[in-house]
Order: sequence, then structure tokens, then C-alpha cells
Amino acid sequence: MKLVRFGAKGEEKPGLVDAGGRVRDLTGHVADLTGEALSPAVLARLAALDPDSLPLAPEGARLGPCVPQPGNFIAIGLNFADHAAETGNPIPAEPVVFNKAPNCISGPNDDILIPKGSTKLDWEVELAFVIGTRARYVDEKDALAHIAGYCLCNDVSERNFQMERTGQWTKGKGCESFGPVGPWLVTPDELGDTGDLAMWLEVNGERMQNGSTRTMIFRVPFLLSYLSQFMVLDPGDIVTTGTPPGVGLGYKPPRFLKAGDAVRLSVAGLGEQHQTVVPFQP
Amino acid sequence: MKLVRFGAKGEEKPGLVDAGGRVRDLTGHVADLTGEALSPAVLARLAALDPDSLPLAPEGARLGPCVPQPGNFIAIGLNFADHAAETGNPIPAEPVVFNKAPNCISGPNDDILIPKGSTKLDWEVELAFVIGTRARYVDEKDALAHIAGYCLCNDVSERNFQMERTGQWTKGKGCESFGPVGPWLVTPDELGDTGDLAMWLEVNGERMQNGSTRTMIFRVPFLLSYLSQFMVLDPGDIVTTGTPPGVGLGYKPPRFLKAGDAVRLSVAGLGEQHQTVVPFQP
Repeated sequence: MKLVRFGAKGEEKPGLVDAGGRVRDLTGHVADLTGEALSPAVLARLAALDPDSLPLAPEGARLGPCVPQPGNFIAIGLNFADHAAETGNPIPAEPVVFNKAPNCISGPNDDILIPKGSTKLDWEVELAFVIGTRARYVDEKDALAHIAGYCLCNDVSERNFQMERTGQWTKGKGCESFGPVGPWLVTPDELGDTGDLAMWLEVNGERMQNGSTRTMIFRVPFLLSYLSQFMVLDPGDIVTTGTPPGVGLGYKPPRFLKAGDAVRLSVAGLGEQHQTVVPFQP
Repeated sequence: MKLVRFGAKGEEKPGLVDAGGRVRDLTGHVADLTGEALSPAVLARLAALDPDSLPLAPEGARLGPCVPQPGNFIAIGLNFADHAAETGNPIPAEPVVFNKAPNCISGPNDDILIPKGSTKLDWEVELAFVIGTRARYVDEKDALAHIAGYCLCNDVSERNFQMERTGQWTKGKGCESFGPVGPWLVTPDELGDTGDLAMWLEVNGERMQNGSTRTMIFRVPFLLSYLSQFMVLDPGDIVTTGTPPGVGLGYKPPRFLKAGDAVRLSVAGLGEQHQTVVPFQP
């Protein structure tokens, strides 16, 4: 099942994608794709619906983030051996964990806003997972049962804010519009194994990132289990799992985003995102 | 005005503290102390009520966190020159910003749970502020208008998780129960100037931290303005502003919390918290 949220910003309705690729309206069956709606029981109920029985969403409706603002938006850093190398960092002994501001979440094709004072705006194609069932001290073997689904995430980053402004990374990770997720929340039964999914990102048609989840250092079940030792993961929380090589910072010389750039990215099975980079406007 | 939330965990009702120190029930006037209820308009409406006209809360009711789970729970590190020194860190050139998991918020007198695997459980008495009006790129001179109120916060920390487990601090800052806030959300008109508030923390009756907001490096208006350059601050978001000297890590040898310890802390004008340290129980 591919779940979506469609409509104007802040007024998104829940939907699903039918076999023909059309968006169907789930409003009559669930209020929004929030915590409770991501439970196994509700997802099973939605999966049992006949998509043809659901109203079609308006043609060309905007897609919002595939889940609403999460309680926590967690990200894993340096989780691909070759990406760690390109940033000049050693392979981490344990997962590197940081936070994106939960309110930076945005739709898959919404504009990326250049923050005021930004000089090093960068991209990161990532596989994200969304919690469906509360996770506290979960064993790795039980981890997948806590996942409602997977989605594509662009972990948009400002490298000056992240690394040259004193302290922790969070300053460069949670600016407004820095969290495009979607187009779809794909349930685990539909996506299948996450161990070898192709991932790519293009800027103005030029392929910048090319990789696969195959080269991840820490895999999804381990990450969920690991995080649940340090904090409680609640339904709706998003964990984005790190990026393969080819970020702007890794190029020599580095290459960063500028106004007018078109960004396109995908993880196999999770659809595509298309973003335009625009100056911040109040 | 001193606002509170009282009742069983997850079922807290909004209230206020009257001139006699009794908790009065605000249920008839506001649903909860969430985002919208923290706006200047709603706070002015609540301030205009005659407390004596409000029902009394049940005698001895538990106090919950003075605001519900925030959209973002932001913390400032090393923000007291003498505390930075005791941790062996230089005085930061800009504020050090990190995140506590929003769901680690807890009541002012709730138990502190020792996380599994914890070896270095520590305390931090802090002044926190809560956002009342959305803040994006706010000038320092306009910052205070975005604050709904102030509260006491114990920025409970696990130093091994925070600093010895690879990467960023977030692993040691957001464990379950690591965010006691309250007892009260004190409105700015009632608290007055935050530039010289006495702060202290005791463990088993022994004074461990003794300080004042006077020695903060970055003050509240600057912090709010600064953060709003990197992320949007939404109503209900909590920012806790750093701790004075005397954390367990700073003692030689270091002193950490163990099961059965009693923690008591205060910031002048913001009341007291009392916590008991207990082993994690599933």
C-alpha cells in the first residue's frame, strides 16, 4: 500500500495510490496519517479497502509530506562508508544520531527555501522509516514490527550552519523546508527487503548521488533497536537513515545549491521528489 | 500568572495557581496549554479571570509538565562560563544548540528513570522559556514578545550516552523522563527580568549547584533571536537555556545519580522540583 497526503499546505487529506497510480481519498476512513492511524490494526483495515470504491482526489492535487509533523524527526549521520570518507570523517563505531526540527517537514515537491545567510546549501537522498508502534528497548529481531512504512527523504543541509557555527549539527538540519518526505509512505509488505535499494539524486539533470542501501553501515533493524535504547520512539516519528556519496560538500571543489536549481531524487520503490531551490521569502 | 497542568499522566488538565497557592481548574476556559492557548490573546483572557471563580483542583493532585509535549525541545549547552570550564570546554563563540526528544518531557516531581545501561546519570538545573508566538528570523529587540512564559527545567543527562557513544549529544539528553518541566509556566509580567535569578540544585539535601542567570553567556532575547535564524520556533516549543556549575561530571571525582537519590532544584520565581531516581522498569 502506498499512502499519501494531498491538498494545500496544512490542509492535507489522507489518501492512497491505486493500481493505476491515481490518488484516492481516504477521508471517510481515517482522519489523518497520524500516530494511531499508523498502527498495524488501522493499516490492515485500510489495506482491506477496495481502492476503486474510494473517491478520486482532485486531478493534480499537491502532495504534502506523506505523514504529518512528527513528534521526533531523527537522522543518522555518516551511515555509508564511502560517504563518511568523502566528508573526511572516519567510519563511526556506533550510529551518529542527530535531530531535524520536526516542523521542517515538507512535501516531496515543495520548494527548498534558501535560509537567510546560507552559503553552503546541500542535498542528501535518504531512505526514511516511520514508526507505527511505540518502541522502547526493542531487540533487533523485533524491530521491523515497529515500522509502519518507508519513504524517500531529502535530508537538506546547510553545511556552514551545521559544522562551522559552533557545536552540534542541528543548526544546519532543521531550517524551514529542510525535510521533504514522500511522495508515498510505502508499507513494508509492498516495499519488501530494504537491503539493496538503488538511490540517486540529480541537480539540473546532472547525476550527483548514485548509490544503494547495500552500502549502509548500520541497517534499519539495528538502527531502530539502537535508537530505542536512548529514547522512546512514538508512532509517527520519522528516522532518516543516512546518505550515500555524492553530496555537494564531497565534491572537489564543493558544489552547493543556488536559487533556481532543480533537484530530483529517488529511492527504488519509494517514488521521486522534485524540488526547486528558491530564496527565502517572508 | 502561574499556569499548571494537573492530573494523572496523559490526562492532565489546565489550571492556574491562585494568590493562596491553590490550583484552580481552567478546563472551562481552555482545553490545554498547547500552542494556540499560549498566544498573547488567550493568555490575556485567562489573566482577566477571577481565580476565586474557578473550581479548585483536587487536593494533592499530581502536577504534570506545565506544557504538553512540545513540537521541539531545544537546549543550549555550555551557556555559563564557569560551567563550560568545569566540563573542560572552551567558552563557545556562538550558542551550542542540541535537542532533547520532545517525548522525554515529564512532570516536575515525576521519577527520573535510570536508562538501561546508564553509568553516568547527571543533573542540570535550568531556566527554560516557552514560545507563545511563531518566531522566524526575529530580531533580538523583538524577541521577548514571542515568549509565553518561563519554567524550571531539569536537563537530565547521561554523560556516557552523550559524549562517549559516538557523535552528537542527543543520545544522552532525550531518554524517557529526562525532561521535567514546571511546576509552573510563569508569564513574563509575573516573573519580571530574567537577568539575575538564583538557581540551585540539591542531591539528598547536599547543595550541588549554586548559581544565577547573571553568569549566562548568551541571554534569553539573544538565544530566541539566534535560534530563529536556524529554525522556526512554534508556539509550545521549549528552549532550556543551560546550567550553572556543579553538575556531577564537574566534580573531582565525578558524582552521578543512583537509585534512591532525591533531587531538588529551583530557579527563583519558578518554584521547585523534587525527583526520586529509580531504576527503569518496563
